[in-house]
Amino acid sequence: MSFRVLATCSETAARVGVLETPHGPLHTPAFMPVGTQASVKGLDPHELRAVGAECLLANTYHLALRPGEALIQQLGGLHRFMGWDGPLLTDSGGFQVWSLAPLREVTADGVAFRSHLDGRPLLFTPEGVIAIQQALGADIIMPLDVCLEYPATEPEAAAALETTYQWLQRALAAHRDGVQQLFGIVQGATYPELRQQAARVLAALDLPGYAIGGLSVGEPKDVMEAMLATTVPELPTDRPRYLMGVGAPDDLLMAVEHGVDMFDCTLPTRMGRAGSLLTRRGRLNLRNARFRREAGPAVPDCDCAVCTRYPAATLHWLFQEGHALGGRLASYHNLYFLCQLLREARAAIAAGHFPAFRAAFSRDWVASDPAVGREQRRRWRTVQSQRRPAPVAER
Amino acid sequence: MSFRVLATCSETAARVGVLETPHGPLHTPAFMPVGTQASVKGLDPHELRAVGAECLLANTYHLALRPGEALIQQLGGLHRFMGWDGPLLTDSGGFQVWSLAPLREVTADGVAFRSHLDGRPLLFTPEGVIAIQQALGADIIMPLDVCLEYPATEPEAAAALETTYQWLQRALAAHRDGVQQLFGIVQGATYPELRQQAARVLAALDLPGYAIGGLSVGEPKDVMEAMLATTVPELPTDRPRYLMGVGAPDDLLMAVEHGVDMFDCTLPTRMGRAGSLLTRRGRLNLRNARFRREAGPAVPDCDCAVCTRYPAATLHWLFQEGHALGGRLASYHNLYFLCQLLREARAAIAAGHFPAFRAAFSRDWVASDPAVGREQRRRWRTVQSQRRPAPVAER
Repeated sequence: MSFRVLATCSETAARVGVLETPHGPLHTPAFMPVGTQASVKGLDPHELRAVGAECLLANTYHLALRPGEALIQQLGGLHRFMGWDGPLLTDSGGFQVWSLAPLREVTADGVAFRSHLDGRPLLFTPEGVIAIQQALGADIIMPLDVCLEYPATEPEAAAALETTYQWLQRALAAHRDGVQQLFGIVQGATYPELRQQAARVLAALDLPGYAIGGLSVGEPKDVMEAMLATTVPELPTDRPRYLMGVGAPDDLLMAVEHGVDMFDCTLPTRMGRAGSLLTRRGRLNLRNARFRREAGPAVPDCDCAVCTRYPAATLHWLFQEGHALGGRLASYHNLYFLCQLLREARAAIAAGHFPAFRAAFSRDWVASDPAVGREQRRRWRTVQSQRRPAPVAER
Repeated sequence: MSFRVLATCSETAARVGVLETPHGPLHTPAFMPVGTQASVKGLDPHELRAVGAECLLANTYHLALRPGEALIQQLGGLHRFMGWDGPLLTDSGGFQVWSLAPLREVTADGVAFRSHLDGRPLLFTPEGVIAIQQALGADIIMPLDVCLEYPATEPEAAAALETTYQWLQRALAAHRDGVQQLFGIVQGATYPELRQQAARVLAALDLPGYAIGGLSVGEPKDVMEAMLATTVPELPTDRPRYLMGVGAPDDLLMAVEHGVDMFDCTLPTRMGRAGSLLTRRGRLNLRNARFRREAGPAVPDCDCAVCTRYPAATLHWLFQEGHALGGRLASYHNLYFLCQLLREARAAIAAGHFPAFRAAFSRDWVASDPAVGREQRRRWRTVQSQRRPAPVAER
């Protein structure tokens, strides 16, 4: 068994565990930084180790498009390509096909779509996506699934779930590598019965781990929590649970309380490049004029290498002047913040006071207005849907 | 005495020394990375330490324009602002006034110019530039000088030298800080007699160090060498000599042979952001298609953290995809290369075989075509001269 639960909370479903991989252990609950194109933007592996990240994520969709899995395999695999010798996870590319690629269509084989880069027609099949991920060589891999926009109707969700299940069977049949751990993905949109049914079916397959997908796509936070509350209890306790695409600090602790072990999200690095820092009291914007003359640290209670080294005014200045170092330092802080939050959560669970730890966090935390997030997501989708692929080259 | 010569070459003027500053020692010959706007682009102080840099340079002109020396002083000075606790050097801003600012004019007071950022009229005086540098708080500071374009006529050069000398007197009178070391700057364009005369006059002033300015501005390499050959012997042996704005590896070793101790240049970081790496056999371009499938290091004989960690294909990929990490890693390699070259030069001088060391370097080195450099410089000047300042705001 590659996953062991080391401690549990007596009052909630929170637990501390460790997932062993051929590239070392991942202590859970854990946040995994995202290197979409095999690079966590602006940061290098030394820094990712320094913030406490143990496992990185890379996107199969992006890497299959460019530079292609064959080249990465030829170069010695994704670990070597990224200069990272710790655990790696690749997703299936499913989410990106649905969110980035135009003209996508589910066929009998898989999902046909056009590259968002050059418009060339491509096909992802359950078997093909496993082959791509085997070539990349991550420690943890994912099966192709059908992703839905929020909101989806129940019949849509049920149909997507059925296809996802058939694809998982094909993925399992294609997966012959005993070293890579192929997780299952629980879908079911916002329908508790569908989610519960999906979790039960997957649990019966005795997989090495279980992802929960299709959340954090615009649904209210209480809906996300309700989905976890109905899903996680159906999953085996001795396997890791991975909530895909979630990175807001309050969401992490909520999900940990429901027994989730792993998280990934571009939020900390995306926010960092935009000049926002995560703090115990919510987000702050380094471009704010109040930092122009601030000789103290941007986040006074943070002991990361950025907050202890630079005055807030320097970070403000780097963003005002458009220096790449600004986004790098802010991304470093944000990743440190999330990894540190989960380090503290692990300690609190082990010490038997996780509920008090989460309550203390919630007292200080000022959530961003969810309407702002929804509006940002709506605009992003509009931009994506208006994107025209470039003419397809003759082949 | 803050500078000590520790070893000399018996066949050339090369020497090993150490310059003590309130922020630690600088072992010479030394290359100093340039943080124009108080940030060595893309790199943070940890990395600058790791490549072996001991002293950084920042530009008075840029910092006086934005964010202003008063703000940096209020924040605790330039060391704190940059997050760097080692030695710092600021230039006088003179070179930038001549190369960047439009509508400059030498007046009785100093040099009047317009900001290249917003067109507002500004005046640098010898006293004002000392006051700015005292507010910034670098360990080594420079007096305002008159810089000339190449080629300059002998009367122009003589007149500029006279003004530079008068300004130095005013700078010395204004400089009351016993901690900051105010160097003199030897000018004289490409006229050996003027350079020799300038060096003698400055030597008599018994300054803590001597800069050699106005070279590497487009003159042929043999002219630069001839100017060093006539200038350096006139300078006191027990003071550091600093050749401003020179960073090409072959130029460094040539100048070391003539007894130069300190260098600065934006070359390694500017080249790095453009995707070029310094090697013992000249420059290479990471965008070259031959690196696309190269699983080995970009520079096989380099032991820097980038070359030992990443396949060349990954660096190629980062530049192809426009990731900021590419420029950062290439800049790191290039700074490591220059610092390592001078570390080896120091060891060779101390061991008594510097001439053989330089000869071995020269055998492998393939210089870039000097015509390319001249053409790049010409284009840069054309762009600068066509730059129109923005309308001056009412004050």
